[in-house]
Amino acid sequence: MNSSPTTCPALLADRFNTLRYDRQRRVVVLLDRRRYPFATEFVECPSTEAVAEAIEAMVVQGGPPLAYAAGLGLALAAFEARDERVATQRERLQAAARRLVDTRPTADDLSRLIATSLREGEAALDADRSAGQAVLAYVESEIERGNEVARRCGAYAAELLADGDQVLTHCFAGAALAWMLWLAANQRKHVRLIATETRPYLQGARLTAATARELDVSCTLITDGMPAALLARGQVTHFVCAADRIALDGHIANKVGTYAIALAAHRHRVPFYVLGYDGPDPATPSGGDIPIESRQADELFHAQGVDEATGEAKRVRTAVHGVDGYYPAFDVTPPDLITAVVTDRGVFEPASISRYLQAPTSALQSSQ
Amino acid sequence: MNSSPTTCPALLADRFNTLRYDRQRRVVVLLDRRRYPFATEFVECPSTEAVAEAIEAMVVQGGPPLAYAAGLGLALAAFEARDERVATQRERLQAAARRLVDTRPTADDLSRLIATSLREGEAALDADRSAGQAVLAYVESEIERGNEVARRCGAYAAELLADGDQVLTHCFAGAALAWMLWLAANQRKHVRLIATETRPYLQGARLTAATARELDVSCTLITDGMPAALLARGQVTHFVCAADRIALDGHIANKVGTYAIALAAHRHRVPFYVLGYDGPDPATPSGGDIPIESRQADELFHAQGVDEATGEAKRVRTAVHGVDGYYPAFDVTPPDLITAVVTDRGVFEPASISRYLQAPTSALQSSQ
Repeated sequence: MNSSPTTCPALLADRFNTLRYDRQRRVVVLLDRRRYPFATEFVECPSTEAVAEAIEAMVVQGGPPLAYAAGLGLALAAFEARDERVATQRERLQAAARRLVDTRPTADDLSRLIATSLREGEAALDADRSAGQAVLAYVESEIERGNEVARRCGAYAAELLADGDQVLTHCFAGAALAWMLWLAANQRKHVRLIATETRPYLQGARLTAATARELDVSCTLITDGMPAALLARGQVTHFVCAADRIALDGHIANKVGTYAIALAAHRHRVPFYVLGYDGPDPATPSGGDIPIESRQADELFHAQGVDEATGEAKRVRTAVHGVDGYYPAFDVTPPDLITAVVTDRGVFEPASISRYLQAPTSALQSSQ
Repeated sequence: MNSSPTTCPALLADRFNTLRYDRQRRVVVLLDRRRYPFATEFVECPSTEAVAEAIEAMVVQGGPPLAYAAGLGLALAAFEARDERVATQRERLQAAARRLVDTRPTADDLSRLIATSLREGEAALDADRSAGQAVLAYVESEIERGNEVARRCGAYAAELLADGDQVLTHCFAGAALAWMLWLAANQRKHVRLIATETRPYLQGARLTAATARELDVSCTLITDGMPAALLARGQVTHFVCAADRIALDGHIANKVGTYAIALAAHRHRVPFYVLGYDGPDPATPSGGDIPIESRQADELFHAQGVDEATGEAKRVRTAVHGVDGYYPAFDVTPPDLITAVVTDRGVFEPASISRYLQAPTSALQSSQ
């Protein structure tokens, strides 16, 4: 690469900008992604339960960030119990881990990070050290590692793009998307982004659009029903999104709506690249093993935005009363619709994504 | 049919409920479909220009209703010019027809109804009769005919459904959808409706959901990104929607988002029925001949709803500033993805929809 900057100006490119443990005040501080970018507000969580509720309420969003938030919540539980007997500390830590893992079932980052954080905490207790310090140190090292994973994943993705490309994306594909756009721009590739608004939480209209704006990348918003129309008209050169979980057989789970776009991209021979960050979940053999979270239907009946006259946050009811709702938060796309999975270890065909687990980590290179 | 009621309790099943010419006050009165069902308010249009602007602003929506509204607007122009010389009346009528046809390019009902209405008005002028009376009489007869077309189309569609079916629909498929649901219910078929909310105007969350509620049909709302996920899970038995224009080669144009659902229904072998009302446009040979309307991107940046505290209409900004938008209002679905087109003259395979033009009109019978 002839140009690879080590910082990216998008707020969401560096997770330390959006979540941290405040050692002095003993609170977990989370950027409220439901409000950003209309307001850059932080939610302070003084307890593990507050962190769990913030995750459930979508204060934090996206596989890695919500895992990091949960990890910080586990550290908080350990600090809270620091003066208890070791057996009690262990129980409290285990209960907090269960509560945090239960918040969101689909993304694998959460369950993996909490399992390892719990082991770190328990090992510290066994050695008569501070479980809180151990968990916090581990989670912070994971955030650092995750930032680097996102940068490498974005760098591989940027290499797949060319000047003039029109990249369709869905939901918010996270820090790797920011890095992809930033590195492509630094390679003098003028890439235009097309973002679905992504109802009901409108991550596309807010997080993706704001990230593009921060990077000075042109971004065109469409509704969630429009991708196939643009693909049919030849207005899209690539479809790029993230995955909340990748199975070893190459199925991916991502924000509901991804599967329909993948079908249309396939029909119109437009490549579909999945930003796969740190690869498949070794514990998920196939797409059928991915649990799909159902969320509260009430979210579908409203839209959250701002009052243009006052600039204040405002939620309006968009649906009539007396209607039911159904809100599967994710869908599963099979490997035959995916061109490649782009990871921090290179670019893989979806059917051979399990090779990621044996791939070298040291250098930026393509393993396809 | 063992049970065929001649009235349907859904407000939108009878177009005379929603649009009319007030002879005393000389205004065209239109139900505001942007507000209904949160409020049942009527917009009064005292001029042809006011009618045209109401059509452009989506006060009235759907191929036949907007054509009827335009027809009433043409009658208004004729009445306004009644005291002018005949040559001037003719000029004013022609100018009004051009203005009204230009409001919405995709639906063929509009251009056809205005062309015939104009001829009726000009013939009246030639015979020294009132052009206004002639146009109004013709448009009102068309509304009556359209109501009957919707009832017959809905009756054929109801015959295709069975007890326990789960029917996915997109946008608001109009009076024929209401009749389909009502007649199926009268045949003791318990049908469950699944409605996309249909951004940005939310016709599904409002018009479709309200119609289902008025008919006591269970309705489940989803976002526009969810149909493929439900189809993949086997939660849909039929996809049914309307068409703003049907070409003679079996391509259909409908609300953007239809094509993506048709692709997913095809993949999962779920039948897709188009409510085709009075059939194809004889002047549109192929799908490529259908003009696709692009609307103002500003609509994509907002959501219209009600303030739950006050019950008042409220529009919120949902997208960040500094983003572009692209709003193709319709997309085109090819005949290979369509199971059948259901019309007032029976059920047709899409590839043979041109046979509609020779089909008998007298009785309810299947011509497939």
